[in-house]
Amino acid sequence: MGLKINIKEIFPEDYSFYGQKMYNLMVKLYPICRSITGDGVRKTLNHIKEDIPIKIAEIPTGTEVFDWTIPNEWNIEDAYIKNAKGDKVVDFKTSNLHVLNYSTPVNKKINLTDLKKHLFTLPEYPDLIPYLTSYYNENWGFCITHKQFEELKDEIYEVVINSSLKDGYLTYGELYIKGEIEDEILFSCYICHPSLCNDNLTGPVLLTYLAKYLLKIKENSKLKYSYRFLFIPETIGAITWLSLNENMVLKIKHGLIATCLGDSGNFSYKKSRIGNATIDKVVEKILFDSGKPYNIYDFFPSGSDERQFCSPGLNLPVGSLLRTLYGKYPEYHSSADNLDFVKAEYLTESFRHYLMVIYILENNKTYVNLNPKCEPQLGKRGIYRKIGGQKEGSINKLAILWVLNLSEGNNSLLDISIRSKISFDQIKKSSDILVKCGLLRDISN
Amino acid sequence: MGLKINIKEIFPEDYSFYGQKMYNLMVKLYPICRSITGDGVRKTLNHIKEDIPIKIAEIPTGTEVFDWTIPNEWNIEDAYIKNAKGDKVVDFKTSNLHVLNYSTPVNKKINLTDLKKHLFTLPEYPDLIPYLTSYYNENWGFCITHKQFEELKDEIYEVVINSSLKDGYLTYGELYIKGEIEDEILFSCYICHPSLCNDNLTGPVLLTYLAKYLLKIKENSKLKYSYRFLFIPETIGAITWLSLNENMVLKIKHGLIATCLGDSGNFSYKKSRIGNATIDKVVEKILFDSGKPYNIYDFFPSGSDERQFCSPGLNLPVGSLLRTLYGKYPEYHSSADNLDFVKAEYLTESFRHYLMVIYILENNKTYVNLNPKCEPQLGKRGIYRKIGGQKEGSINKLAILWVLNLSEGNNSLLDISIRSKISFDQIKKSSDILVKCGLLRDISN
Amino acid sequence: MGLKINIKEIFPEDYSFYGQKMYNLMVKLYPICRSITGDGVRKTLNHIKEDIPIKIAEIPTGTEVFDWTIPNEWNIEDAYIKNAKGDKVVDFKTSNLHVLNYSTPVNKKINLTDLKKHLFTLPEYPDLIPYLTSYYNENWGFCITHKQFEELKDEIYEVVINSSLKDGYLTYGELYIKGEIEDEILFSCYICHPSLCNDNLTGPVLLTYLAKYLLKIKENSKLKYSYRFLFIPETIGAITWLSLNENMVLKIKHGLIATCLGDSGNFSYKKSRIGNATIDKVVEKILFDSGKPYNIYDFFPSGSDERQFCSPGLNLPVGSLLRTLYGKYPEYHSSADNLDFVKAEYLTESFRHYLMVIYILENNKTYVNLNPKCEPQLGKRGIYRKIGGQKEGSINKLAILWVLNLSEGNNSLLDISIRSKISFDQIKKSSDILVKCGLLRDISN
Repeated sequence: MGLKINIKEIFPEDYSFYGQKMYNLMVKLYPICRSITGDGVRKTLNHIKEDIPIKIAEIPTGTEVFDWTIPNEWNIEDAYIKNAKGDKVVDFKTSNLHVLNYSTPVNKKINLTDLKKHLFTLPEYPDLIPYLTSYYNENWGFCITHKQFEELKDEIYEVVINSSLKDGYLTYGELYIKGEIEDEILFSCYICHPSLCNDNLTGPVLLTYLAKYLLKIKENSKLKYSYRFLFIPETIGAITWLSLNENMVLKIKHGLIATCLGDSGNFSYKKSRIGNATIDKVVEKILFDSGKPYNIYDFFPSGSDERQFCSPGLNLPVGSLLRTLYGKYPEYHSSADNLDFVKAEYLTESFRHYLMVIYILENNKTYVNLNPKCEPQLGKRGIYRKIGGQKEGSINKLAILWVLNLSEGNNSLLDISIRSKISFDQIKKSSDILVKCGLLRDISN
Repeated sequence: MGLKINIKEIFPEDYSFYGQKMYNLMVKLYPICRSITGDGVRKTLNHIKEDIPIKIAEIPTGTEVFDWTIPNEWNIEDAYIKNAKGDKVVDFKTSNLHVLNYSTPVNKKINLTDLKKHLFTLPEYPDLIPYLTSYYNENWGFCITHKQFEELKDEIYEVVINSSLKDGYLTYGELYIKGEIEDEILFSCYICHPSLCNDNLTGPVLLTYLAKYLLKIKENSKLKYSYRFLFIPETIGAITWLSLNENMVLKIKHGLIATCLGDSGNFSYKKSRIGNATIDKVVEKILFDSGKPYNIYDFFPSGSDERQFCSPGLNLPVGSLLRTLYGKYPEYHSSADNLDFVKAEYLTESFRHYLMVIYILENNKTYVNLNPKCEPQLGKRGIYRKIGGQKEGSINKLAILWVLNLSEGNNSLLDISIRSKISFDQIKKSSDILVKCGLLRDISN
Repeated sequence: MGLKINIKEIFPEDYSFYGQKMYNLMVKLYPICRSITGDGVRKTLNHIKEDIPIKIAEIPTGTEVFDWTIPNEWNIEDAYIKNAKGDKVVDFKTSNLHVLNYSTPVNKKINLTDLKKHLFTLPEYPDLIPYLTSYYNENWGFCITHKQFEELKDEIYEVVINSSLKDGYLTYGELYIKGEIEDEILFSCYICHPSLCNDNLTGPVLLTYLAKYLLKIKENSKLKYSYRFLFIPETIGAITWLSLNENMVLKIKHGLIATCLGDSGNFSYKKSRIGNATIDKVVEKILFDSGKPYNIYDFFPSGSDERQFCSPGLNLPVGSLLRTLYGKYPEYHSSADNLDFVKAEYLTESFRHYLMVIYILENNKTYVNLNPKCEPQLGKRGIYRKIGGQKEGSINKLAILWVLNLSEGNNSLLDISIRSKISFDQIKKSSDILVKCGLLRDISN
């Protein structure tokens, strides 16, 4: 790949230790009980703010956002189920997944039959606690392992959920990095899941360090694009942000939703609804060039916040670059999606791909060959190796020939790299050489 | 599939016993000696008329129809070959295939050498009688098994064909069922083959009962489309009908030629010449959703009456939905294509697919999502299951999301069902729910 | 294939012995030391002129051709390396590949270390002499086997290259055969390689006999297209010709670069940069119809003179029909690409394909079906076999139906033959029959 070297040209900092940094941040965020509103979100964003200067927005309960309304804010202190002997058989303090997320408060004695109406398990994975929510339907409940469920005796239980659902705010974080042009690259993640790592803490930690990296680069280099990073609750957060920023969404020229970036699986790319947007071509090219297996998914309308960004009335060029797709691994949305399931090294690989997206988008120019009739004489310009006829062709020479042959105004360097199956970086370097020789004119808009 | 239930919504009658009814009608029609003209056609149409109120047309010999002329009417009483001893070695009464269809009358003594010039066999299938015709080249002949052929001794034979070729008529049947709009769905079959079942009696019996079914439905429900059923002699009948109805062919919006519908083979679809007409998409979707193997053939200019409907000057959206394609099974055009070769159960399956074509075409609306910016909140409308985050996704929820995401005016429900790989019926039901919630507007023309 | 018969219709001469004739010409040309300029080219062209009346052009050194300048003319008398004993250890007279092509003159004593800077070998093929050039970077050198290289002792050598680089000319040959229209078919080959057969003497010898064949045909028949044959030095020759003829290149409607036509490998076709030009469709159809394996390569900007003809400012419909692609066989650009490596029979096969290209292009008409509504009655015109219903279809009947069905003005016979998978010749013959019946009108422009 030679990726590191190439990235260094415009991104001088080494990034290989970032995997561990991301992992360390995830360790800090893991214990917090998050939801789509409440103090868990605030604590999470405050941790992130120690690394990057996000602005934190608080949108009041009751605010209308498109077809939706910001719900009551949810907070929770404690929750448990005590058996007849007074032993806590289920305890929120051992795992915040134990409480059905957004449970209404409860404090009562209840027999087993009635309790069971409020218990959720994964019979096919009897040791795992499921992750469930009930945001818009008032309910209370406990998520427990199926083993726990089967051990419950027919007796009277004390159930306590010390939660509150009150007027408050929906909270989210945003970071805008201004570049030379107003066109934006959007990176969005969600910060609403409690103790769950791959889906979804890997998203916020990767975007935190991607933003930090960009800010450091910006100290010495120019960024062409402006960048926007969103740390929002899933669905209602995306709808809220889009509703409040509707007039400016057309500035978003490329975007990615970041989640599921720390598992050991192959990379996946879920295309934007447009299907052949530049971001789609960029990510496919990066995965193709990686030489490793990968999966491309056409857009589908379930999933994460691309559902909102790619709704028909917005149809933004936003895809999702992840490792194993949500729902495709058994640990998904359960207590097994924990700090052991994700690894720093996988986060580093993901980080590299996200950096590469930026590298390509920042450098994807379109040129016109100023000597379009027959090839220019490269030898007299010192470009060619002077000895012809050799058996092994030089890849650089071929990259130069491709750039000259396809630079007629409608092919970007990305297009040329895809067509030629040569890495974007080789194509970019070839174009740099040709520009220096006066053989190409930049006609990028 | 759940097909039966869905069809029932607009088609309340059960149809599972129709296979046997179709088979019974075929048993009645099988012995008749049909050709492109003559009393065999009339008897066949009169049988059909007992089930559905077809109009029978008689077009006189000599009528010019496009480039063709209605030929003399052919009728036959008897035919045989007697050997020197006076034994009938070939007898029309044992199989009407024995006579070269449209043979001129003959009554003479003939030696073996001369007789052989008028004998046709299938050497590769020595027990089968071939089916051959000579409509436009005056000739006489006998079709016999190759075994019979090889047993003929070198003696004088008496050949008798008691046929007539005289001024008369070309006869065909037609049924028009008026719907809410003048746009038509055409179902056409041919009624010119003698004792041959799969090709082609399965066509007329299936269309007879399809028409009967539609008429019964119409007693209680509205049909959007008008329907036209043709029972015509192949080629000359199609040319005649098209010539007489040239001014109205543009009303035909979708069409199918029905033949080869009773064998045990996989379904096949021969596309219209247009190639991506709605009828092509509908049939491919039905076969795809069946979960069984099937064959799709691009249009080719040999075959049945789609040759005329899809001639370049007409180019109508008419395909052919059949089981094994004509010519692709060894029994084709031989005495082995008999009542044992086709089964009621296969006719039922074929009938179901034809009903499904009607079901989809009648229900294929196009909607616009009235809440196109982000998803509408389905929960507050009672659409969603309120508990989110569960492992297994609900297919209905996904269908609803697809309908919302793709309903922007240029995708019909059929298009959405194809793109999403969800059954048309699920997509239709989802759209019904969304219409009730006021989230979709019907913009079908 | 039946190719010979079909070709005979417009090309009455047998061509099967042409393989040997081409081979014999190659034997004459093989010993000559060619380069991009000089007497080797002149001798080569004079041999060719014995067969066909090419015009020989001489373009002076220093002439500017697009971005390039005609270099000094190179000639060589002799070259060798003598060891300390005075034995010739490398001798130009045993193989003209021994001298780095375009070497400057040298005559000096030199030690082994310095000599090695001027020696080129193929370590992976220790018995082969590589072919190398240094046209635009003044240098001298010897190409030797790696075995020779390893046997050299550490002693003083005498190196002599008796060459000259002086004001002179670039020489090329051209033959123009005028047809009925000014639109041209271009066949181009290069005549700059020394003793190397497949790449590239097979190109000049095949084009010599293709031209000769056409001239003979023209004595009795009319050619629709005009034909241009170029025998030019690679790269600089193509650039020179295009620069001098820039105003007329748009007359080139179809073109092929001829090289690598005598090895035993499968045929290959490198598409024009346009990718779906008529020449691309013609050659793919010929290779498809051959029934043998073949390779299709999308255009790539390395290779031979298609690089110039397909440069973005010209973008001519010029592909390359060859057997094994240059660089894909180990003998490429080495002393193993000799008279043993190519065979007359393979040249004959190549010749047949080139003739077939001409046959298709000369006959590729576009018709309109004058009876477009339903099929015309072929029987009454004597076209059909009159007995219908037979098991085996006649290919001619099907070809006729395809021509009738697709002749609506936008499909050429080539298009119809590709769509129907029927040979071009069958389709052409069917169209001839239909034209005679008055059923088709020629609307070729």
